[in-house]
Amino acid sequence: MFENMDFSKMGELLTKAQEKANELEQEALKKEFSAKSGGGLVKVSANGKGEIIDINVDDSLLEDKESMQILLIAAINDVFKMVEQNKKSMASNLFSGMGML
Amino acid sequence: MFENMDFSKMGELLTKAQEKANELEQEALKKEFSAKSGGGLVKVSANGKGEIIDINVDDSLLEDKESMQILLIAAINDVFKMVEQNKKSMASNLFSGMGML
Repeated sequence: MFENMDFSKMGELLTKAQEKANELEQEALKKEFSAKSGGGLVKVSANGKGEIIDINVDDSLLEDKESMQILLIAAINDVFKMVEQNKKSMASNLFSGMGML
Repeated sequence: MFENMDFSKMGELLTKAQEKANELEQEALKKEFSAKSGGGLVKVSANGKGEIIDINVDDSLLEDKESMQILLIAAINDVFKMVEQNKKSMASNLFSGMGML
């Protein structure tokens, strides 16, 4: 299937894609996403790579561990959905920018 | 560059890759990863898709919110590294299984 493909151009394309992907990863690191749960009792922030950078729990939740744990799970999963969504849109920008989509 | 490529075979390959990817995603959902911090004072579990499924905080940490928040961040980021690692090895299995690597 790939017999008559021009591999030198493919190599060029892959190098360009790798450079662009690294650029996007650096950009993602600067981005910050936050999600709240329990009406703001828990707030979780992550960078664009999906690394958690801050967690804030309201003092009132320290009296109710079960609720705190449930609200933590909700806020973390919400912030990760934002990160994943952003990763997907950055990837599609990357490919459309290279005329591959 | 792609002028003389056989697109019917490409379509077949992409369909096969999509089916395999869906299969792997289902498999990932069944997997569970856990990370601890603070010598086990905090334990965080996630499935293979990267969704947090459980958080457990030791009662002693409820007296020290700052430490709790720091240990939560550490455990969550550790479990996500495991999930990402697993995703990468599943992806490379997918591509090597299809003779594309």
